[in-house]
Amino acid sequence: MRKDVFELKVNLLASASVVGKKESAGPLGPLFDLRDEDDRFGKKTWESAESEMQRIAFNTLLAKSEKKENEIDALFAGDLQNQCVGSAYGLMDFNIPYFGLYGACSTCAEGILLASMAIASGCRYACSVTSSHNCVAERQYRSPLEYGAQRAPTAQWTVTGAGAFLLGKEERGAARISRGCAGRVIEMGVRDLANMGAAMAPAALDTLLRFFSATGERPEVYDCIVTGDLGFEGGAILQDLARAEGIPLGKRYTDCGQLIYDRETQDVHAGGSGCGCSAVVLSAYLLPKLSSGKWRRILFLSTGAMMSPDSIKQGRAIPAIAHLIELEAIPE
Amino acid sequence: MRKDVFELKVNLLASASVVGKKESAGPLGPLFDLRDEDDRFGKKTWESAESEMQRIAFNTLLAKSEKKENEIDALFAGDLQNQCVGSAYGLMDFNIPYFGLYGACSTCAEGILLASMAIASGCRYACSVTSSHNCVAERQYRSPLEYGAQRAPTAQWTVTGAGAFLLGKEERGAARISRGCAGRVIEMGVRDLANMGAAMAPAALDTLLRFFSATGERPEVYDCIVTGDLGFEGGAILQDLARAEGIPLGKRYTDCGQLIYDRETQDVHAGGSGCGCSAVVLSAYLLPKLSSGKWRRILFLSTGAMMSPDSIKQGRAIPAIAHLIELEAIPE
Repeated sequence: MRKDVFELKVNLLASASVVGKKESAGPLGPLFDLRDEDDRFGKKTWESAESEMQRIAFNTLLAKSEKKENEIDALFAGDLQNQCVGSAYGLMDFNIPYFGLYGACSTCAEGILLASMAIASGCRYACSVTSSHNCVAERQYRSPLEYGAQRAPTAQWTVTGAGAFLLGKEERGAARISRGCAGRVIEMGVRDLANMGAAMAPAALDTLLRFFSATGERPEVYDCIVTGDLGFEGGAILQDLARAEGIPLGKRYTDCGQLIYDRETQDVHAGGSGCGCSAVVLSAYLLPKLSSGKWRRILFLSTGAMMSPDSIKQGRAIPAIAHLIELEAIPE
Repeated sequence: MRKDVFELKVNLLASASVVGKKESAGPLGPLFDLRDEDDRFGKKTWESAESEMQRIAFNTLLAKSEKKENEIDALFAGDLQNQCVGSAYGLMDFNIPYFGLYGACSTCAEGILLASMAIASGCRYACSVTSSHNCVAERQYRSPLEYGAQRAPTAQWTVTGAGAFLLGKEERGAARISRGCAGRVIEMGVRDLANMGAAMAPAALDTLLRFFSATGERPEVYDCIVTGDLGFEGGAILQDLARAEGIPLGKRYTDCGQLIYDRETQDVHAGGSGCGCSAVVLSAYLLPKLSSGKWRRILFLSTGAMMSPDSIKQGRAIPAIAHLIELEAIPE
């Protein structure tokens, strides 16, 4: 029988977050390490701006953790751009062995899971870096900003942000990664590109159910259960689905896409999304709750919708995935 | 200091290969497990045909190895389609924890390296599946087939093929994966989309040099040193570069893109390429040389060019990467 849960004995030693203008103006704005006020990060194209954001996030991580480039054994990275060029160009200046990932918006947790496995295989330090950029995603997946298309109420707002994480065996840092559960590709027939929360919620449920079933844990033992970017629509669907399965998530449930913007004033419809969303919220908001001792134990799931614009045009539904990591406060 | 080489104690237990028409007609044609005579695999779109090819390759792997779906702990997969949908749709029918990868044509070795790490982290069995489809790649990266664009002499022919590999700890199977060396992203200024061999050769050299330097090995101890898809152009460049570095590769060097087609009669210009190229050649041609005892030890590098059509239009050069695995015959 399959082993659904990985026992990981790895620590999240440090992290860094870089965001754009809208994210700076949101409720978590003051918590991010670095902000750019025009989302361009000094570059001429949005695509280069996203790469620059990854480069800055990783550099900030090295600075915060006082690590040198040549101490990092492996770098896991991904983004939403075709052929994941955001990461390839963003991190190519660092001479570090590189594993490119594509997990759509689930890439943050995917990278952290795989970096944990790299440490189990003998790496001393491994990093995960992920990003998304609103203007890049809009023109690649939907239409150029200049077109001014109206957005559906269930549509989410792709976060402009990059998060970077350093993992190692040392018994210190922001949090311990105690267990992990990799997602399966789940496709439930949702074809609406403007409602990715609905497509992703069943994938989050599948991973949660497998994790609870394999470990015997219940939602009550966690201070927080947080998904990556189901947003308001998908988050509500997940809560309904979980209740029907007899594991109500209750008030301890939240979603990074719900936390990052002010729904009343920022006009983001169903909340934030993108590889950068769960990455910057994990780094700037969730990890400090664990390292400060406010929380003891949380479940963090990054959720991804794995379609392409072409696959939707060809009539395929949206396959989704959710990777989970269990994070614990490191005892003093 | 960085640990450049992973010591892996994992065996490649079984593999499967599925190819299209042109590959069937090439010199390795009779060696592949399955062939389709019109490259459509019963599907209406080339994109769905590629997914179907992955599905068939993985099913064939399960059948050949007498494994059930629920015995596989983790599946690593990737392809060249935007958002890697070839893999997501191809493998979503299997309820197996899934890690999506993007390494361009280096994904075969990347997946095998990461599957090895998954085994080190406690998985019993892990698989890697990769594919490419000529007609999908032509219209996504270049122009639709109907356009009939003339090809440059240095251009390569994307292989229609999918390869699947089963890894585990059992001391049997096709070959032992003894060591691995992950590639770094190398960009040397090559901007010519019709000469990806030239862009990738320096990445292959970088990985080889780091592997030889970390292990103290020399090319002479290997029966074969084989790259994924440098083709004739990139392969010749790699041999020149290696000679200049004092590690001439000599006649033991070859390339999967050189092996898969007959250059004289098949009109493929600089040889084969694509995620499927190194995967099907490894499965059908290289592994049997090791399992039959004809070869004792080889180095296998998958090489990838990580640009996107948009990044080239925006004036960026082609970043490349090469992941290496050392394969040994399993003693009887």
